[in-house]
Amino acid sequence: MNIRTDPFSDLDPMALLDTAFRQAQLGLAEGGIPIGAALFRADGTLLGEGRNRRIQHDDPSVHGETDAFRAAGRQRDYSSTVMVTTLAPCWYCSGLIRQFGIGAVIIGENRTFSGGQDWLADLGVAVTIVDDSRCVAMMTDFIAAHPAVWNEDIGVADTPIVKSAGGRA
Amino acid sequence: MNIRTDPFSDLDPMALLDTAFRQAQLGLAEGGIPIGAALFRADGTLLGEGRNRRIQHDDPSVHGETDAFRAAGRQRDYSSTVMVTTLAPCWYCSGLIRQFGIGAVIIGENRTFSGGQDWLADLGVAVTIVDDSRCVAMMTDFIAAHPAVWNEDIGVADTPIVKSAGGRA
Repeated sequence: MNIRTDPFSDLDPMALLDTAFRQAQLGLAEGGIPIGAALFRADGTLLGEGRNRRIQHDDPSVHGETDAFRAAGRQRDYSSTVMVTTLAPCWYCSGLIRQFGIGAVIIGENRTFSGGQDWLADLGVAVTIVDDSRCVAMMTDFIAAHPAVWNEDIGVADTPIVKSAGGRA
Repeated sequence: MNIRTDPFSDLDPMALLDTAFRQAQLGLAEGGIPIGAALFRADGTLLGEGRNRRIQHDDPSVHGETDAFRAAGRQRDYSSTVMVTTLAPCWYCSGLIRQFGIGAVIIGENRTFSGGQDWLADLGVAVTIVDDSRCVAMMTDFIAAHPAVWNEDIGVADTPIVKSAGGRA
């Protein structure tokens, strides 16, 4: 008898991450901060995808995760959804995941930044760290090339606002 | 010698709350969830104001606080800003306040809902509860009239999605 206790057990984290990674690449090509995300159902259905648009839209509220959440539209129940993101969610996006009861998070990498991932895991969210070298390289290069924009995006003060990230890092 | 240690000490919480309350009233008149917010500098300058627009824009990512944060545009430093909201911030909005280092929060009421206010206070955010009877009455009436929409807005599952709140509660 096969008792399914983990609704996310059939998902391939790397395959889902590819969708978020393509969003990050698109953001980089637009001159933006290369962080992408996507919200899926546990059966692998894509609900919405998005990317950080601080630079592109001059909008500090659009992180990759909030953009994907918005793109997914109104949902009745998030418990069987998974948020996939190229970079570990900040506290803003971790709060989103907690408030709406998103059941799982797949994280491309948490070497260049870490927010509320342990907090979410302690609350029962299924957290998977892929530790993807493409994601690490993309953020490492971007942060080195555009430290002021990056610091602004994570709320680190005392850096000037830069209206353009100047294209590809 | 006057040593100023609290940059928010000159602010009048009730006066600032009026701005957020007008946003909540506007949202209610639009058929939306009546939660308003505004971001001010510590000197009382209004940076941005907004309201929950789940119903109006069919957008689950627009809570009052995130709408006010967006309206304020990109800021270099949030430590001397204050987020004023008619209702205690949920975890999503509390995460926003934490990540961007918003220095103070003024809350109209926390009787009908409470999210991360104690967490924020423990982290050093200056939290003021006005306990405003107008805010309590507005949310109490709305929740009683539209429980499904309200549950959806705070991520409580097992309620259907209602595309219109049906006008004034």
